[in-house]
Amino acid sequence: MSQIFFFKKNKSKLLDIFPNLKLKNNFFINSVKPLNIADKYDVTFLESTKYIHDAKHTKAILCITTKKLENYLPKKVDKIIVQNVLYEIARVLKKLYPSADVDTPDLSLSKPKVTEFKGVKFGNNVLVGNKVKIGKNSIIGANSIIEQKVLIGENCIIGSGCIIKNALIGNNVVIQDNCKIGQKGFGFIPLKNKNLKFPHIGRVIINNDSEIASGCTIDRGSINDTIIGSNTYLDNQVHVAHNVQIGSNCMVAGQVGFAGSSIIGNNVQIGGQAGISGHLTIGDNVKIGGGSGVVKNIEDNQTVMGYPAESIKIFLKKNKKNE
Amino acid sequence: MSQIFFFKKNKSKLLDIFPNLKLKNNFFINSVKPLNIADKYDVTFLESTKYIHDAKHTKAILCITTKKLENYLPKKVDKIIVQNVLYEIARVLKKLYPSADVDTPDLSLSKPKVTEFKGVKFGNNVLVGNKVKIGKNSIIGANSIIEQKVLIGENCIIGSGCIIKNALIGNNVVIQDNCKIGQKGFGFIPLKNKNLKFPHIGRVIINNDSEIASGCTIDRGSINDTIIGSNTYLDNQVHVAHNVQIGSNCMVAGQVGFAGSSIIGNNVQIGGQAGISGHLTIGDNVKIGGGSGVVKNIEDNQTVMGYPAESIKIFLKKNKKNE
Amino acid sequence: MSQIFFFKKNKSKLLDIFPNLKLKNNFFINSVKPLNIADKYDVTFLESTKYIHDAKHTKAILCITTKKLENYLPKKVDKIIVQNVLYEIARVLKKLYPSADVDTPDLSLSKPKVTEFKGVKFGNNVLVGNKVKIGKNSIIGANSIIEQKVLIGENCIIGSGCIIKNALIGNNVVIQDNCKIGQKGFGFIPLKNKNLKFPHIGRVIINNDSEIASGCTIDRGSINDTIIGSNTYLDNQVHVAHNVQIGSNCMVAGQVGFAGSSIIGNNVQIGGQAGISGHLTIGDNVKIGGGSGVVKNIEDNQTVMGYPAESIKIFLKKNKKNE
Repeated sequence: MSQIFFFKKNKSKLLDIFPNLKLKNNFFINSVKPLNIADKYDVTFLESTKYIHDAKHTKAILCITTKKLENYLPKKVDKIIVQNVLYEIARVLKKLYPSADVDTPDLSLSKPKVTEFKGVKFGNNVLVGNKVKIGKNSIIGANSIIEQKVLIGENCIIGSGCIIKNALIGNNVVIQDNCKIGQKGFGFIPLKNKNLKFPHIGRVIINNDSEIASGCTIDRGSINDTIIGSNTYLDNQVHVAHNVQIGSNCMVAGQVGFAGSSIIGNNVQIGGQAGISGHLTIGDNVKIGGGSGVVKNIEDNQTVMGYPAESIKIFLKKNKKNE
Repeated sequence: MSQIFFFKKNKSKLLDIFPNLKLKNNFFINSVKPLNIADKYDVTFLESTKYIHDAKHTKAILCITTKKLENYLPKKVDKIIVQNVLYEIARVLKKLYPSADVDTPDLSLSKPKVTEFKGVKFGNNVLVGNKVKIGKNSIIGANSIIEQKVLIGENCIIGSGCIIKNALIGNNVVIQDNCKIGQKGFGFIPLKNKNLKFPHIGRVIINNDSEIASGCTIDRGSINDTIIGSNTYLDNQVHVAHNVQIGSNCMVAGQVGFAGSSIIGNNVQIGGQAGISGHLTIGDNVKIGGGSGVVKNIEDNQTVMGYPAESIKIFLKKNKKNE
Repeated sequence: MSQIFFFKKNKSKLLDIFPNLKLKNNFFINSVKPLNIADKYDVTFLESTKYIHDAKHTKAILCITTKKLENYLPKKVDKIIVQNVLYEIARVLKKLYPSADVDTPDLSLSKPKVTEFKGVKFGNNVLVGNKVKIGKNSIIGANSIIEQKVLIGENCIIGSGCIIKNALIGNNVVIQDNCKIGQKGFGFIPLKNKNLKFPHIGRVIINNDSEIASGCTIDRGSINDTIIGSNTYLDNQVHVAHNVQIGSNCMVAGQVGFAGSSIIGNNVQIGGQAGISGHLTIGDNVKIGGGSGVVKNIEDNQTVMGYPAESIKIFLKKNKKNE
């Protein structure tokens, strides 16, 4: 699905943004995308050796990177060599999507018209933005806000006091009271006295049959999407940062926090108050004990615990040794 | 007090739900209750050796349990032997209370009528459901939602943006802004692709003189009630899961999380961000250090710290040894 | 700026509150202030040796303290010797500011009048109290509540579902959806069956260019103010307790919790779910690892981790030793 949530300036050419570069190709930029999904007219970027596999196979013809990393990219790719890759990407994004760096409240909100939402029930004072679509047999609780262009499937129950924006929600999804979904994540380039806010053009995608309990916050992606898999249940006060992808059939207990860009497998169980650091890969069928702090990737089928989290066997052994 | 919050089908007989069983007694089921309070026409259940004391003294005449546990029950009790006790209980509950497994927003909400709530002050846009009762001198802040049949005592202050359902609230209680009280807890039977949601027929009971700070979530009980004792204070962003019972005169600092079904004594002090695992018993006068993870029962008068939490003396000794 | 948020009884003399004392001076009390900023007609207090430096230089002429601490105060200062300093301070505050101990919802709220707020955009159902001021080009999202006398600067974006009271907010500040700012903190004198609520006469001050993400709670100060420095960014679900002061250019990740009265320097970075205990001083340029529990002061330029948090070098060494 193409980007629908953010206004995009369609006529930005590469040399408008990088006027001093000598490039083989000057073109109208389509969008900014990560290496693995970037296409011919996208701007992509390589900022860490974590992504050198994607670099090798990218379809992009232009990549922003550093002196140190440029040799991981194919020869045919034009490189823009910079000091701070994310700063330049933020700059490109701001040019293309001038309003994606701040969550301006949706001022198009109004009471839903019965004729537009057949088979949908609304509580009191619900507000919906332009072009919202909601499937039949769904219910939206009182005081909830569904901002423009959000799509909600059939048989969904959205509680009261929820705020949903920049999100695509499947069928049979339950979202309990007071969840905040789709807001900008915690992304910015730290600059003394005036940080540069990183535009967030990603979305939140919540797949079928999921349940999100009260008071959760799920930030939209910065460049990728934030994804909750099908039949995955989140308990109260869970915090899901931008670009996190959680698989199917997962169980996430109360007050768990996911830092940005981690990828969680299927059938993963996470105990209350655990924290998952950013940019990690957690395998399928992993169990993470309550209160643990996960700072490294975890292979499939592992059970971990502690801070930093380690195999439960080692954790219990250490605890014994210390007695 | 009898169950008032959930619609109950009154004509469910045991053999309608378990058609293939040979039972001494077939009867109209009253409700589902734990062993210690179940009466003659209730369905009760034994799913763990934790409850064998209650099993011995139960007044119930019918109990769902496993092959392994059946001998802990008195002979006179009819047993229904199953693989997964909680799955069967969920099935019985769903038959009796067909709407308790999902929090459908209350569509009976409307502006409170002055004549029905004498001596009560309401902020703007407050919404109340049918049969709500609020005592005199209580104040309800703007945009708050009090769902059907909720009872609130006298001299209470409910802040703005609160959502309260399935709850009984005493006198002189303060609930600060944006609390979410009485929603379904995190209970379900994990089934691939389509979990079975566990109906929650319990309530939240908040006793006199308590204070609940901003942004707390207190889930209603599944079969028991969730209880906050009198003169107990909860700080911001505390998460109280289903069936938790907290005693009187307790102090619970910010962002503490209680997993389901734990029982906390009186005069207990819990530091910020501590986590209490499920199904534990914490004694009176216990002090739990901030950030601790409690995974075992704690006797009266203990001070504990660490993860897993242990006596503070041992904690300090270990920390010293490691230096 | 003088105290503007709480109604103050202007004619309370010292001997009205402490009728049995023999004092050199009886005067109309101005306010209650900490030692370092108290002036001639303020009541001040010394309850811990942490503040003996301030005691020596205070301009106050009257101080509530204990037998044990009185000698740290200059001779010219009248001392009121008590058992429980904070209890007596709460009593004085309650006399002077009879409504600051409970957050009664603002019943003066109404729809903002266009003529009063030139250049400000409001979403649907916004409610503002008396004497609120909002600078030009600011936007307030739907369903947000701005209580009486709150000041908001120019170019601010306040999200939807926010509740702001007793707060002064600078220019270019972004506050995302569902933040709760300015409520009473977790302060009370524990008394069996009926705690004495500590009046909170402080404010929340959020300086220019800050960003507060979704679902944060920032309590107002009890006697001091709670302060967020300029260009400081807080991620989702952060909890800031009363009297906390955070410097400029700080980055605070999701679900971090600050207990009361800690002072955080400039350029401090704090990882997700870390907890900072009360009454600490954290220096400039400090980095605190995610999930850490900080229980001691930290000097400038340190990097710490663990629970209790310690130098990262020691943390890593210990972790290795335990392997």
